[in-house]
Amino acid sequence: MPGSSEQYLIHNLGSITQRLIQFASIPSVSADRACAGEVRRAAEWVAGRFVEAGLERVTRFETGCHPIVYAEWLHAAGKPTLLIYGHYDVQPPDPLEQWESPPFQPEIREGRLFGRGVSDDKGPLLTAIEAAAACLKTGRGLPVNVKFLVEGEEEIGSPSVEAFIRNHTRLLACDFVLSADGAQWRPDEPSVITASRGMAALELSVYGAKKDLHSGRHGGGVANPLQALAGLLSSLRTPEGRVLVHGFYDQVRTLTEEEREEIRGIPFDEEAYLAELGAPKGFGEPGFTLLERQWARPTLDVIGMGGGYQGEGIKTVIPCAVFAKISSRLVPDQDPGDIQVKICQHLEQRCPPGVRLEIKPAGEGVPAYRVPVDHPGMVTARQVLEEIYQRKPLAVRIGATLPIAEAFKRLLGAETIFFSFSTADEDFHAPNEFFRLSRLETGLRAWVRYFEHLGQTSSRQSSGLTE
Amino acid sequence: MPGSSEQYLIHNLGSITQRLIQFASIPSVSADRACAGEVRRAAEWVAGRFVEAGLERVTRFETGCHPIVYAEWLHAAGKPTLLIYGHYDVQPPDPLEQWESPPFQPEIREGRLFGRGVSDDKGPLLTAIEAAAACLKTGRGLPVNVKFLVEGEEEIGSPSVEAFIRNHTRLLACDFVLSADGAQWRPDEPSVITASRGMAALELSVYGAKKDLHSGRHGGGVANPLQALAGLLSSLRTPEGRVLVHGFYDQVRTLTEEEREEIRGIPFDEEAYLAELGAPKGFGEPGFTLLERQWARPTLDVIGMGGGYQGEGIKTVIPCAVFAKISSRLVPDQDPGDIQVKICQHLEQRCPPGVRLEIKPAGEGVPAYRVPVDHPGMVTARQVLEEIYQRKPLAVRIGATLPIAEAFKRLLGAETIFFSFSTADEDFHAPNEFFRLSRLETGLRAWVRYFEHLGQTSSRQSSGLTE
Repeated sequence: MPGSSEQYLIHNLGSITQRLIQFASIPSVSADRACAGEVRRAAEWVAGRFVEAGLERVTRFETGCHPIVYAEWLHAAGKPTLLIYGHYDVQPPDPLEQWESPPFQPEIREGRLFGRGVSDDKGPLLTAIEAAAACLKTGRGLPVNVKFLVEGEEEIGSPSVEAFIRNHTRLLACDFVLSADGAQWRPDEPSVITASRGMAALELSVYGAKKDLHSGRHGGGVANPLQALAGLLSSLRTPEGRVLVHGFYDQVRTLTEEEREEIRGIPFDEEAYLAELGAPKGFGEPGFTLLERQWARPTLDVIGMGGGYQGEGIKTVIPCAVFAKISSRLVPDQDPGDIQVKICQHLEQRCPPGVRLEIKPAGEGVPAYRVPVDHPGMVTARQVLEEIYQRKPLAVRIGATLPIAEAFKRLLGAETIFFSFSTADEDFHAPNEFFRLSRLETGLRAWVRYFEHLGQTSSRQSSGLTE
Repeated sequence: MPGSSEQYLIHNLGSITQRLIQFASIPSVSADRACAGEVRRAAEWVAGRFVEAGLERVTRFETGCHPIVYAEWLHAAGKPTLLIYGHYDVQPPDPLEQWESPPFQPEIREGRLFGRGVSDDKGPLLTAIEAAAACLKTGRGLPVNVKFLVEGEEEIGSPSVEAFIRNHTRLLACDFVLSADGAQWRPDEPSVITASRGMAALELSVYGAKKDLHSGRHGGGVANPLQALAGLLSSLRTPEGRVLVHGFYDQVRTLTEEEREEIRGIPFDEEAYLAELGAPKGFGEPGFTLLERQWARPTLDVIGMGGGYQGEGIKTVIPCAVFAKISSRLVPDQDPGDIQVKICQHLEQRCPPGVRLEIKPAGEGVPAYRVPVDHPGMVTARQVLEEIYQRKPLAVRIGATLPIAEAFKRLLGAETIFFSFSTADEDFHAPNEFFRLSRLETGLRAWVRYFEHLGQTSSRQSSGLTE
């Protein structure tokens, strides 16, 4: 009689850790063309591990950019089908000199594995793969059907993934998506992500004369595009941070007392947070707490701006062309296209004389995402976390945008549940990224339990559909 | 009996043009370290030409940067002593691809010599040297005493010149300065420069958190330095262009009806000017004409600004540090230090919460400069131009700053008369810089006449002192 999957995992924790070190040694930096071969090697590594794990139909799909690795195991008749999502590419390791150990020679120090990509997303992704492997190796098979979709372009905005999903809706058909990407709130406190904000971005250019002008000879005669740009950007918000674009808040639902209560219930030390960022103080729309502003209120931020002389010292120039980039984080019911139009109108109406304004939307934007609280995948996630941590998980939102969840919803009709065991403080996208090895063990157990719990329901129940 | 200097010049115009081509072939780009040897070669070329011309005490003074070339001829006993100023360094030639002929292979097309530095300032400088040479070669000697001060750092802000003047006040003692630098208003209309604006500049930095933050995760929680900067810059002026800094206009003299009349008398086609710049329309402080605003009213311009993501596309970042550079053009009686302090106070009072503002004055600034209308050097300039052009020269001001004139005044007690025969439209500092060869001939004749006219006065008269 085969042993339990959890026992198998405990016995194999050492070799799983070794495999993570091997995986994280591959510098699969998707943003760096010079690393294209290494990115491919990481895809091959994932595919190889799928084969060893006993998964089937292991395929590397070529895209215009980096390959997508697919694998499946579909022998749990009548049981739900999970689409498990993760990515094998990593952020660039720069600035290299700030790493205490080389980014692609993972090193364990005080229970933490340091290396680029260990937390985002190689550790969490391998957790999901190894949990499936454990179920298959112990001879019982998986209690649910699984499909893996592992991409190599997450850190560069997943340019190929949407078309891939659109062209493979049958292959990817599932009850819902379980994502190995997306961090938990705190290392010692279980949490589920219930919502993320959307995004709408714009690039604007302000043009004056046809060439840069000497600010002495011409200053006072013609308009200065930098000054015009400063005025336009400053018109977007009150000094306190409330957005002044007409209609910007029209679709924003008022936070209910229940929602505010839930957010107030999150243990959050605002002073410690600000101290960690080195921010002098909190700032934002009056009338809301910091977490409310970051999770449940839309924002509008200038994210880039440039023009004129940017070198050492002074060069007295009135530049002919200057630019800024703006992004807005959206909450449910705000439409990215509508927000782009409203910001455009606001700016165009205020463009001062003597300059010309050009605005270009940066893509179509992404709506906010919200998982229904009673979705079976979410209910299962809460149950599993409560069993393992012996306390109810926090329901947290994230201020960032999760375009993949919105794409799965739109293209496959599937909700996405985030079930990662990395933690928000693990310095992904920064030097000395790390992954807590204790979370590797917890994560492996949690994923196995997730499969088992879900295996007790039928497919129709678990897609969240009511008859 | 020796021939007249003017006849000598007419006979030698061909060889003078050849010498200018030779001089302008040396890429003496002071801003480019790689050109340091060529800058030195240009200094040697000037010194060599001084020796050939018969000037004395020809010296190359080493500075921390590029050499200063000095020469003199002081045998006109009892006659005024002129300090002749010019520079042998040139602007960088970039963008190279926009030149119709190589910038350092000067080429004559339709009566114009094209090449970097031909108009600023090698043509006008050589004009002064060759005029002195003509006087010496024709055997009569110079009718006045002359000292030449030719620097190689004008295009990089003359970092060594002020200390040089301070340390050589006896060597440079003179009745007044006659500058071969500083362009005339129009090619077909003689003009003298009566005033230039001063300058005060500042660099400001706005700091938020200690590192760049993800605008999704942190947006809404902390202040955005770019937004703060936009607000600060936009607070400096009304949308119409009047400066809002408290006390900024306190020292500004009201334009008299006579001054306004004089400016109105300048032939100036505003539409043609704007069309040439490609500016959609004029812009600036209400209540003044365009020329009044450029010549006789102070301005405040943002001349550089940067922060956040400036590459292709969008990267959603709240930057930790952003900056701007501001420069103000000043009119007589405005004190650069006082204006710097006032701008600082204005900005500091308005710095929004959540960010930290740092302001650094860019040097000490330069006061505006104005030549007394009845200064003998100015009277002589007007006489000579009227004789040659057969019409009264226009009295023009310039919007730019002439720090060297202010330094000569402060350190030597000497006024500076600008007597250049380049023209403001000759694209100095831009591709395809040119010098009108007709102006070389006119300039040579004018400089000789200037020496002759001034030789008819005594030293005491010509320094503008009344007993």
